[in-house]
Amino acid sequence: MKLFSSVNDVSNIKQLVKDALELKANPYAFQSLGKNKTLGLVFMNPSLRTRLSTQKAALNLGMNVMVMNMDKEGWALETQDGVVMNGTTVEHIREAAAVMGQYCDILGLRSFPKLNNREEDYSEDFFNKFVKYCAVPVVSLESATRHPLQSFADLITIHETWTKKADGTKPKVVLAWAPHVKALPQAVPNSFAEWMCKAQEEGMVDFTIAQPEGYELAENFTPGAKIEYNLEHALEGADYVYVKNWSSYKDYGKVLTYPDGWMMNNDKLKFTNDAKIMHCLPVRRDLELSSEILDGPNSLVIHEAGNRLWAAQAVIKTMLEEL
Amino acid sequence: MKLFSSVNDVSNIKQLVKDALELKANPYAFQSLGKNKTLGLVFMNPSLRTRLSTQKAALNLGMNVMVMNMDKEGWALETQDGVVMNGTTVEHIREAAAVMGQYCDILGLRSFPKLNNREEDYSEDFFNKFVKYCAVPVVSLESATRHPLQSFADLITIHETWTKKADGTKPKVVLAWAPHVKALPQAVPNSFAEWMCKAQEEGMVDFTIAQPEGYELAENFTPGAKIEYNLEHALEGADYVYVKNWSSYKDYGKVLTYPDGWMMNNDKLKFTNDAKIMHCLPVRRDLELSSEILDGPNSLVIHEAGNRLWAAQAVIKTMLEEL
Amino acid sequence: MKLFSSVNDVSNIKQLVKDALELKANPYAFQSLGKNKTLGLVFMNPSLRTRLSTQKAALNLGMNVMVMNMDKEGWALETQDGVVMNGTTVEHIREAAAVMGQYCDILGLRSFPKLNNREEDYSEDFFNKFVKYCAVPVVSLESATRHPLQSFADLITIHETWTKKADGTKPKVVLAWAPHVKALPQAVPNSFAEWMCKAQEEGMVDFTIAQPEGYELAENFTPGAKIEYNLEHALEGADYVYVKNWSSYKDYGKVLTYPDGWMMNNDKLKFTNDAKIMHCLPVRRDLELSSEILDGPNSLVIHEAGNRLWAAQAVIKTMLEEL
Repeated sequence: MKLFSSVNDVSNIKQLVKDALELKANPYAFQSLGKNKTLGLVFMNPSLRTRLSTQKAALNLGMNVMVMNMDKEGWALETQDGVVMNGTTVEHIREAAAVMGQYCDILGLRSFPKLNNREEDYSEDFFNKFVKYCAVPVVSLESATRHPLQSFADLITIHETWTKKADGTKPKVVLAWAPHVKALPQAVPNSFAEWMCKAQEEGMVDFTIAQPEGYELAENFTPGAKIEYNLEHALEGADYVYVKNWSSYKDYGKVLTYPDGWMMNNDKLKFTNDAKIMHCLPVRRDLELSSEILDGPNSLVIHEAGNRLWAAQAVIKTMLEEL
Repeated sequence: MKLFSSVNDVSNIKQLVKDALELKANPYAFQSLGKNKTLGLVFMNPSLRTRLSTQKAALNLGMNVMVMNMDKEGWALETQDGVVMNGTTVEHIREAAAVMGQYCDILGLRSFPKLNNREEDYSEDFFNKFVKYCAVPVVSLESATRHPLQSFADLITIHETWTKKADGTKPKVVLAWAPHVKALPQAVPNSFAEWMCKAQEEGMVDFTIAQPEGYELAENFTPGAKIEYNLEHALEGADYVYVKNWSSYKDYGKVLTYPDGWMMNNDKLKFTNDAKIMHCLPVRRDLELSSEILDGPNSLVIHEAGNRLWAAQAVIKTMLEEL
Repeated sequence: MKLFSSVNDVSNIKQLVKDALELKANPYAFQSLGKNKTLGLVFMNPSLRTRLSTQKAALNLGMNVMVMNMDKEGWALETQDGVVMNGTTVEHIREAAAVMGQYCDILGLRSFPKLNNREEDYSEDFFNKFVKYCAVPVVSLESATRHPLQSFADLITIHETWTKKADGTKPKVVLAWAPHVKALPQAVPNSFAEWMCKAQEEGMVDFTIAQPEGYELAENFTPGAKIEYNLEHALEGADYVYVKNWSSYKDYGKVLTYPDGWMMNNDKLKFTNDAKIMHCLPVRRDLELSSEILDGPNSLVIHEAGNRLWAAQAVIKTMLEEL
């Protein structure tokens, strides 16, 4: 694997989940793989879980890790070609990415969308140019439209916690939109949706998305997903509820008005099959998701965050094996 | 040891000093202890000595170290329960701490007081919640009311440099308040006082605190300490003078007017028993402490800072042994 | 080598180039040298290439690396002696440097000039005081007037890419001033000039500097260099053109008016001997240097940046051998 930016970069998601759980059982078994190999983690935006879990994953594999918080350095990169750089951008991504590729065997990149131009964000121009010019394998640490390490950790968590049914019933997984005060990217829900749609194809889950009118995700991320506009209805019989806010894709980057009742809480939980509750974190308590759920037995959020480590380690291990 | 936040977390301070000096003599003897173990250092405030000495201590023990400068990331944490998080805090400490505990075997935390609410600061609410929710051993890198790694390094330095007297005379140690332009926390003097009071109980030192009226520390940090309001008098026969500024505890966080003559200099040194001069650093030259002393033979400040490494290594080694 | 701050700290530049190329061929051969040794990288200003290449160089040698981005911490250091520190500086360089020396075996320091006082900048007061007080070997990561790791990497790159001529002709190397929107230090051109003048003495290159009137570098950096004010004339027969902007030394730190035609592009390339084009990066595209060159076969800029790693590794290896 030379690139991990979406579920489409993974040849076999069942096998990758299996690899991750084997690493979880035996974290230090492959340290010779990473010996004298360096992972560079490049952040254009802040990170807590992704930074620590990916760094730890590489250390578990015997790698060296170098972290560049470029958002802290005011190191503004130019991405357009043919512009005279007489403004505020100090370096072109062609040089910056190529240079980082000179010092690292694998690079990780985080670059959030600006949320003011849908075409620009969904082109993944920045991320794709970085991949092109750095000339080494790249792991997405969340790009404008996807957060694949998160979605992979989510799939691991569902697989790990689901008890197989004699009749082969699949877990019902619901992605449920929730309120927030800020306009957030669609990266996490897009990515979760495309991983769950793929898992549905593979017979691993049944997948439903619930959101208010106007919050529909781009259709290319949701092939085969059941779409609901009524939360209670969507939650019926749910085994896993993935709570997440996102801003509008149609009215791009906007926070639209929505009916009451979209915060996940114990009243909503009653509609489910005693569902496990998931969230990528950070979570706004009692706005997206009630404290009673987060502090209760149905919450998987910390367990899920813990699995970020094994998701990252499985991906990096695969890349190391092909270096 | 699952927690190192004050002298009260140490069962035997003499033994811990002994351990630290053995590590100083043989820094790399325990690298198998830390193999595949990770220390996470979480800074809510800037750090130079504490960051470098603790990181080096963990590396000497064979650990991996991950540093999170959360103050640089504007990653504002919510600490109150039951609040609707529709404001500026992006994550609750319940999740943030628990997640960091997922990726680290031991965590270090620095969190300064705000100095505007004494009850809040002295409750150590932030630090204690972090300890509670992260669910792994925690080393204080300075909290609202204490700086135990500094105080432990101070005790090591006194023990290491004191020549035992035939008549069993103990070194006279004086904590001397000094001027500053800013309102500083009481963490360092509180902590030094409680370590010296404990050392006095153990027959290691005689301990005196000198400060102007209004600068008295909270009494629970100073059991058995001799309190003086006259600096010259306090300095008589002193073997060690620990110079430090702090803001008022009584008139909380305020810088009160004070009489002249509280800056430590060679004129004051004359009153002492050719005392060694200590300071936790950073020090304001010629405001807290004169350059003539800092650059002269009585200063221990660099030696003392060097011992931060062995203090941290002894504490982390003890925690590793109990993992 | 206890100090690497200029070409004058190197006893034999040909040998050091040879060492660097041997490390490039065999990067991990000396990991026992760095075992349990720590490199501290102290940045008073932002860094991308220098930070990553020097960190990687130390890791290749088996060292531990600790990075302090002091510019991010608002940790303002006092450098003057005898001042009462009742202002904004929080610590004196005497203590800060000495403390860092307590935790590190070798230190690297980056400190840019302020460009408002030539005497102050050219005294290298900050850098020299850091070296004096830290009491361990120091590698310059770019100081007020020099960037020796860059210049050494530049010499490696020229030596590595030059095909020896039967008649012993030396490569013609031209340092060519180029436009910029900001007032930049003279550190890179000063340093490149002094390394090339030394290489010219050693019979490795013929060296020419081309700049507009008023942009002459300080003469002590350019002994034996041919000085040109006409770019086309300077470029005639050039084998290597090192493109770089700098502000005026004479009218210190100012951006002076200059005639058109100083941006390096394909029209200018025609005057050369199909020259290789070099730049330290970051480069302002189509302002200093044309995209057509940067993206074409004559550009060495990425190769050159890659050699920063081997330059740093050769220097650190030499220091480790003498610890």
